Amino acid sequence: MIEKLEYVYMPKNSLTFPPERLLLAPGPTNLHSRVLQALIAPILGHKDPRFLDIMDETAALLRYVFQTRNKVTLALPGTGGAGMEATLVNLLEPGDTVVVLDAGYFAARMVEIADRCRARVIVHQTEWGRAVDIDSLEAALQQAGRVKLVAAVHGETSTGVEHPIAEIARVAHAHGALLAVDAVPTLGGVWLPVDEWQIDICYSGSQKCLSAPPGLAPITVSEPAMQVIHQRKTKVQSWYHDLSILSRYWSRERVYHHTAPINMTYALREALVLIQEEGLETVIQRIGVLSAGVLAGLQAMGLELFSDPAHRLTTVVAVKTPTGIDEARVRATLLETFNIEISGGLGAYAGKLWRIGIMGHSARPRNLLAFLAALEMVLREQGHATEPGVGPRVACEVFSRT
Amino acid sequence: MIEKLEYVYMPKNSLTFPPERLLLAPGPTNLHSRVLQALIAPILGHKDPRFLDIMDETAALLRYVFQTRNKVTLALPGTGGAGMEATLVNLLEPGDTVVVLDAGYFAARMVEIADRCRARVIVHQTEWGRAVDIDSLEAALQQAGRVKLVAAVHGETSTGVEHPIAEIARVAHAHGALLAVDAVPTLGGVWLPVDEWQIDICYSGSQKCLSAPPGLAPITVSEPAMQVIHQRKTKVQSWYHDLSILSRYWSRERVYHHTAPINMTYALREALVLIQEEGLETVIQRIGVLSAGVLAGLQAMGLELFSDPAHRLTTVVAVKTPTGIDEARVRATLLETFNIEISGGLGAYAGKLWRIGIMGHSARPRNLLAFLAALEMVLREQGHATEPGVGPRVACEVFSRT
Repeated sequence: MIEKLEYVYMPKNSLTFPPERLLLAPGPTNLHSRVLQALIAPILGHKDPRFLDIMDETAALLRYVFQTRNKVTLALPGTGGAGMEATLVNLLEPGDTVVVLDAGYFAARMVEIADRCRARVIVHQTEWGRAVDIDSLEAALQQAGRVKLVAAVHGETSTGVEHPIAEIARVAHAHGALLAVDAVPTLGGVWLPVDEWQIDICYSGSQKCLSAPPGLAPITVSEPAMQVIHQRKTKVQSWYHDLSILSRYWSRERVYHHTAPINMTYALREALVLIQEEGLETVIQRIGVLSAGVLAGLQAMGLELFSDPAHRLTTVVAVKTPTGIDEARVRATLLETFNIEISGGLGAYAGKLWRIGIMGHSARPRNLLAFLAALEMVLREQGHATEPGVGPRVACEVFSRT
Repeated sequence: MIEKLEYVYMPKNSLTFPPERLLLAPGPTNLHSRVLQALIAPILGHKDPRFLDIMDETAALLRYVFQTRNKVTLALPGTGGAGMEATLVNLLEPGDTVVVLDAGYFAARMVEIADRCRARVIVHQTEWGRAVDIDSLEAALQQAGRVKLVAAVHGETSTGVEHPIAEIARVAHAHGALLAVDAVPTLGGVWLPVDEWQIDICYSGSQKCLSAPPGLAPITVSEPAMQVIHQRKTKVQSWYHDLSILSRYWSRERVYHHTAPINMTYALREALVLIQEEGLETVIQRIGVLSAGVLAGLQAMGLELFSDPAHRLTTVVAVKTPTGIDEARVRATLLETFNIEISGGLGAYAGKLWRIGIMGHSARPRNLLAFLAALEMVLREQGHATEPGVGPRVACEVFSRT
């Protein structure tokens, strides 16, 4: 007999019927009906020849969005954080030097992981909301001595800034370092040609611009980076994230490493097919136009944008909460009254910013107009003066201009 | 312009329509329609209060199947291998001694991970197909000196053996060691009362007896084990698997660690509700009866079982391929002609065994009868003499006896 335990809480209801939210935080996004259908396609065993084909197809589609020929291109069985950890634990050995470009929330995590690799970590700081300055980076690398790896974030989810990866790559390579790029909120939404820019290792998450459910981390690794991994003196400290084994699982060798998340892989594959059908360039352009419209709409409503105008990330819009307005209450009302989710600020900017994701399937004119209209309602209720209807109208003008 | 890359292969077709397989390998299993419905329930943001409730509910349901009151009970964002890695990297520090009970395929992986933790690893070997001998383990622990951790596999997927965890726990604790248990093919299908047996840390995968899609790893951690983790001298070498952070993400603190795999969590929750509705004891009993029926049916067909009869695992049946029969060809025919998947042997037993999973939603009399009937057909075609219809008939007698 099973002892009757007093569980903290024992749910008795069967199917969860969550409310139908419009997801406009910087990920996850709403899912296209074709992605949902793929998610529940008949499950296969992970060794089924038909599933192995689906892995190959997913890898090919990932190469397309990464714009790379890298053989080692796959989906890690984890979230974006798994991508970051895989990147750092595979490339760093104890005593190696890594320069982390810190300009937002997620660099702290890179430092944390690199530190656990017993690497020498040099943090190159940039003020939140501004882009990495290339001259200052160049000077820092001169000072640093031998650097094995430069780790950068392409799009700062916390600040809405896009960093100049092409130039960072040039400087890093001139200094003999590899370049690792976090593309969590940018892959499939922002221009990021991995081969052309000579990025050595680049990772993302499934639930942002790719618009698949959260839980997989696409990653691509260049030949030089794989060589560094193969020539390590010490074993990678994580077996789960060991790219030399994972790459053999995703190659024709099929060396067993884990049971691939079957349904999640179906969904990711379908999300990638949707991008391929629309065309990566068209998707990036659509996101750009919609983002510009939202920016214009927010400004027309008297709100001030947070990030450096010269380096604004299209996929995450960061806007300052006006004085006298309760940041969290606005978000709560949007969620409860209108079923619309946006995000607040992170770290020192908690309570001071809103962040809006312009990503994947959520990024449609209809959705963004609904958000701007609802935001106006909530802001007026809290006493913020704005011309009625101006946000959606101005946004719509931008949307239709192109 | 996106450079026209010659991708290895670029799939153009939209939705994947895999064949409708009956999955009778040791996981993944077929999915209940309610689990599929949950998988595509409206997606929420990972910080949505409604989703946080779903995390709490999932934790409570996991406590039920683990039969534990452990506060730290959660679903890791990864596969069963993530559970193994989280267990070992959190409990082991450099120089610590771990005794790994090696009696099948997956112990080698434990050794591999423990070695990467720079622990002193003692391998206690048991012949494949037999259960760990308690006297011999006791002697080994006497010899080993101070042991921090004993790591055992509850059910050997590779051999179809159930190891005596209750006794292993007693011996480990008598020796002052913690006990870690791999319950990948047993949680929710085999009797495993974590608190009663005083298991310190126990992990599983979502796609075996729990019958959810693959990609999550349930884990539960006792208070003594959490204390050991909190008192570490060194940081856990994996940030992604750091249980002191993960436990705070799953507690009311909600310290952000990763974006929970939303849809996967819905599906796991629903799969657990199904077990709760049927009753864990009833599920375990059902699996036991069905497994006994399959064993009897296979023996009636003149096949020889692999594992020690006194320690047979109900959820994975290992049966020897008769001399003169092509192991892989039988599996290929079952798959291609009948859309039925079973597994072959691992390691030294590749080509010599079949392994059949009796797990979750796949474990229904109808499915197992279909398998036995199809196997008979394929075996007769390859010249194995067996009385027509005997496998399904004998199995059915056992199924209905209870």
